[in-house]
Amino acid sequence: MAQLNRQDCERMDVDDPLAGFREEFALPEDTVYLNGNSLGAMPKKAMAQVQQTVVNEWGKDLIKSWNVHDWFHLPQRLGDRLATVIGASSGEVLVTDSTGINLFKVLSAALTIQPERTKIVMEGSNFPTDNYTAQGLVKLLGDRHEIIFAEEEAIVEAIDDSVAVVCLTQVHYKSGRVLDMKAITEKTQACGAVSVWDLCHSAGAMNVDLNGCNVDFAVGCTYKYLNGGAGSPGFLFAAKRHHGKALQPLTGWWGHKAPFAFDRDYTPADGIDQMLSGTQPIVSLALTEVGLDIATRADMSLVRRKSQQLGDLFIRLVEQLCGDYGFQLASPKDADRRGSQVALAHESGYAIMQALISRGIIGDYRAPDTLRFGFAPLYVSYADIWDAVSQLKDIMQNEVWKQEEFNRRLAVT
Amino acid sequence: MAQLNRQDCERMDVDDPLAGFREEFALPEDTVYLNGNSLGAMPKKAMAQVQQTVVNEWGKDLIKSWNVHDWFHLPQRLGDRLATVIGASSGEVLVTDSTGINLFKVLSAALTIQPERTKIVMEGSNFPTDNYTAQGLVKLLGDRHEIIFAEEEAIVEAIDDSVAVVCLTQVHYKSGRVLDMKAITEKTQACGAVSVWDLCHSAGAMNVDLNGCNVDFAVGCTYKYLNGGAGSPGFLFAAKRHHGKALQPLTGWWGHKAPFAFDRDYTPADGIDQMLSGTQPIVSLALTEVGLDIATRADMSLVRRKSQQLGDLFIRLVEQLCGDYGFQLASPKDADRRGSQVALAHESGYAIMQALISRGIIGDYRAPDTLRFGFAPLYVSYADIWDAVSQLKDIMQNEVWKQEEFNRRLAVT
Repeated sequence: MAQLNRQDCERMDVDDPLAGFREEFALPEDTVYLNGNSLGAMPKKAMAQVQQTVVNEWGKDLIKSWNVHDWFHLPQRLGDRLATVIGASSGEVLVTDSTGINLFKVLSAALTIQPERTKIVMEGSNFPTDNYTAQGLVKLLGDRHEIIFAEEEAIVEAIDDSVAVVCLTQVHYKSGRVLDMKAITEKTQACGAVSVWDLCHSAGAMNVDLNGCNVDFAVGCTYKYLNGGAGSPGFLFAAKRHHGKALQPLTGWWGHKAPFAFDRDYTPADGIDQMLSGTQPIVSLALTEVGLDIATRADMSLVRRKSQQLGDLFIRLVEQLCGDYGFQLASPKDADRRGSQVALAHESGYAIMQALISRGIIGDYRAPDTLRFGFAPLYVSYADIWDAVSQLKDIMQNEVWKQEEFNRRLAVT
Repeated sequence: MAQLNRQDCERMDVDDPLAGFREEFALPEDTVYLNGNSLGAMPKKAMAQVQQTVVNEWGKDLIKSWNVHDWFHLPQRLGDRLATVIGASSGEVLVTDSTGINLFKVLSAALTIQPERTKIVMEGSNFPTDNYTAQGLVKLLGDRHEIIFAEEEAIVEAIDDSVAVVCLTQVHYKSGRVLDMKAITEKTQACGAVSVWDLCHSAGAMNVDLNGCNVDFAVGCTYKYLNGGAGSPGFLFAAKRHHGKALQPLTGWWGHKAPFAFDRDYTPADGIDQMLSGTQPIVSLALTEVGLDIATRADMSLVRRKSQQLGDLFIRLVEQLCGDYGFQLASPKDADRRGSQVALAHESGYAIMQALISRGIIGDYRAPDTLRFGFAPLYVSYADIWDAVSQLKDIMQNEVWKQEEFNRRLAVT
């Protein structure tokens, strides 16, 4: 394969139909930010949005803002915008609470559909909060249910007609591996089970098609590829066919049929509204609109293609420039099986990542040996990839990372 | 009783030891804001705080902010500050999630303490989200529990040694009536039951003494008298004696003993941390610090005294200026039995409140006939009370409200 240089990468940027989006983000100087898979970058319009919510709405209109600025329906309004990004319909998505709380809600709702079944299929190596949430729910329900933890191919094998719910994350947080949402959902439903998908590492980075895959429920966060802000609220999806039937148990006044009637007893709201619980953090919630607005203007097919090309380029450049330094690819090489990130394994991974970060190449490290690099297609350029891998080469060639390793040992002893 | 005039009220402001706090809030001009019991006013430092979190932390330091700015421990840090305002100790309070989600957590935890008991005593006329939360939990637990709804004196009578949990709101959202936290908690615990208190309408408005009353668990919001911002996160309190024993079921990675070990299985964190669930909305969360900072500098005994004097003055002026217009006091007249708000009942309450609001006197209306006026002692002045009641008199005397009533009927038909 031909050797690439920086000019080749710059040419790819010139040809990039999404290149214009980078201007919408305030990226720090002298930084290559490859951690948008953990916390997305700040859109330039973020402060204007916050100024509006805090000063003009809270500060000036005070309590009237609930009506005048319709704070009360922010979860639905933002959900409708997000719906267009993940293949859902209007009235099927809410932006609210945290991913974990939302998972508790939809998992509880999903378990009501086949109440006599007791098995929940999950991936043991998944980002663990999903597993913890399911474990908490199972314990609360009196340990009647059993979580079947499976990995890779064994996931599909574990799905049979004794299973109540299959709860999986589409893109693996560590390896970036993509599960086949359509095939797995088909098998799940062929077995009479209910599908729950976590989109944390896919929403905003690829063309997710919830209704095209006939998914039952989904959750996710807005602070990664949707650039909603630090710890910004999560989202949930419930397919219309389950509305009014599969109800969730965190029943607060926002999910009541008539919240301002102040009835003593809970009556579930119609539609997606029943999935709401209590009052939402309006400043963080309203802030997510800036990132969602960008995502809704981006063609997710182009986003997916660029994401794959960025990953392919990264892998190719690591082979070309860093082939001698003992890195193992810990993500699928096939771009169709990989989300928007690449993981490399290296026994000195921690020290190498520290050396990269101190040079402004921001990825992250996951024990025991994984360096993660995320490629948010709306603001990462092909030249960024060149710069990142060039720095990685320099760090390895000059053994800069050994000083980091030394510092670390010094700090431990 | 002597007739008062505006000069008398202005003199009270001159003598007010808390008067200086008003300068810390950005109150709109030509407004008397008597709705801080619903949404507190904006502290002037709010935008500086948001600018710091959004631009300097999220925007510049991006993912590093989780460590550099210690976002990860914001719930505990803010909780420790709030603890000093509500009579709790460091390590017993978290600012996190919503009030309802927190109530679900502590109610679940409380029910584990006397697992053979099945009765939960609540107040039927309470702000209903607490009741809805309990109803959702009871249903999820298989309807093994029974909620005993009681009112006023019957609450205490309902507490006996068959009761598992007594879950009450200290200050009633509508009438402002204060329950005797110490006496009720004593009786609760004498019966072997567990006490859960909702402080939504008391935290920041009066001297709450959770540990002085030996309370087991508590929840509340930060967006009323703690001025944390629109829908800002809730809080929860768990007495140290329950840590590590009474666990909550919304088990997310923030409540894990080693969140960054990414273990497959949940192991509860020590101490209050187990009460955490998932990732928090950092912008809204960090913003609460501005209001909490003000509250921690205010002597809550002085706050309580001023709150009572504002309420007494309001009631006295309504008698003096509006005695002929058919208002009924719908709050306790005795200031010791009343929180920081006064409710008036009037058959044309809705229209009267609309007329007040259109003149910049901001209270609110609760069906079928209640006008609510909240007195946030840190920024409401005695002269404000005069101005509010003077406007009320003018509206009644000139029958201005009848036009509102007319408009309303027009809108309905």
